[in-house]
Amino acid sequence: MKRLIIASTSTLYNGNYLEYILPELKVFFKDIKTLLFVPFARPGGISHEEYTSKAQEIFKTINIRVEGLHAKTNKADAILNAEAIFTGGGNTFVLLNSLYKHNCIAALQKVINSGTPYLGTSAGSNICGQNVKTTNDMPIIYPPSFDALQLINFNINPHYLDPITDSKHMGETRETRIKEFHTQNTIPVVGLREGSWLHVVGNSITLKGSLSARIFEKDKLPYEIETNSKIEF
Amino acid sequence: MKRLIIASTSTLYNGNYLEYILPELKVFFKDIKTLLFVPFARPGGISHEEYTSKAQEIFKTINIRVEGLHAKTNKADAILNAEAIFTGGGNTFVLLNSLYKHNCIAALQKVINSGTPYLGTSAGSNICGQNVKTTNDMPIIYPPSFDALQLINFNINPHYLDPITDSKHMGETRETRIKEFHTQNTIPVVGLREGSWLHVVGNSITLKGSLSARIFEKDKLPYEIETNSKIEF
Repeated sequence: MKRLIIASTSTLYNGNYLEYILPELKVFFKDIKTLLFVPFARPGGISHEEYTSKAQEIFKTINIRVEGLHAKTNKADAILNAEAIFTGGGNTFVLLNSLYKHNCIAALQKVINSGTPYLGTSAGSNICGQNVKTTNDMPIIYPPSFDALQLINFNINPHYLDPITDSKHMGETRETRIKEFHTQNTIPVVGLREGSWLHVVGNSITLKGSLSARIFEKDKLPYEIETNSKIEF
Repeated sequence: MKRLIIASTSTLYNGNYLEYILPELKVFFKDIKTLLFVPFARPGGISHEEYTSKAQEIFKTINIRVEGLHAKTNKADAILNAEAIFTGGGNTFVLLNSLYKHNCIAALQKVINSGTPYLGTSAGSNICGQNVKTTNDMPIIYPPSFDALQLINFNINPHYLDPITDSKHMGETRETRIKEFHTQNTIPVVGLREGSWLHVVGNSITLKGSLSARIFEKDKLPYEIETNSKIEF
């Protein structure tokens, strides 16, 4: 049975890496000895090694060993044999491009749909959706497709941000951007605020964390759903 | 000789559409009777007609008639025969995708390089660069390429935004995003703040408006250039 945690962010303001969600991860990854880490999104351009070390540092506190996917010769095989998988945040385009380049897409879909526990944060959450067309990231590389892992039947917008009152900046608000998405696409979008995550067990999807989430459906006014609600479209 | 105005935004906070730059446009478009407007970026998802009307409304105050490119049967021909061209802002991916779909890229490059005056704002400025990999927009449609008009030998980041002091939001700052761009690309990026524009005359490019611009070159620390400076890489 499919088991995922799809988190808006890895880190809360004034918090440490994964700190806010560590109690949840301890339960989610119970019995897991080794976690396969996908470092391809490279936040801030750091190296795959540095990023994997950062993940190792926090997971060793709950007795889990971390291996970096970048170091595996056959990456699809490493995915097929993983006990559990964690894809970290960074740039969604760089991440998706690497997954296509290393033939990881089908392998990830196969094992996650068959029950290998999966954790995604930010970019690692974006790729769980139907496509990456609701990412906030800069398109710094051209991937062969925007299609993502399609593990859920909607898209995520991570780091969802409400309009900033009194902003004098004339760039689009997040809500305007998602409205523009719906001029070209029909699938729903879940705006996940920082500190929120989706807990997926089979076909049951629950919003977790202390905040509500904002839901965008084509031709409807956006609306809020409360934490601990089921999400179903 | 090439003549362009490449503006960060169309509208300043508390201002009307193109108001801040209208005195400049009156000089730039002197002797122009009819302006071809490219409405494809569709800000907020408005229709091509509505967007063209909005442009007509302001340009009629300086006695210029506006025609929408969307209404032309042969779009490449309309571009080749235009007196002057203005591409409005909105979503850069939707804009670029439409330009490819309607075979407008080569026609735009040909006439602009030969001297047809061109005004771009926001998304219409992004497409003047080498590619659209430094847009802030959501990738709501997958274009056949990220390559843009390549009228200048660097990229623009319009609506350039300095890091917000005291922000508790953990999404990347603009500077971090452009740093990530330089892990994958070598061309310089000019961060154009709202109210700034580039005035291009042949190979001479001058920063205009009241603010400085932030320049990002691979493997260098970002730096500021003052208004009225020439930009050369």
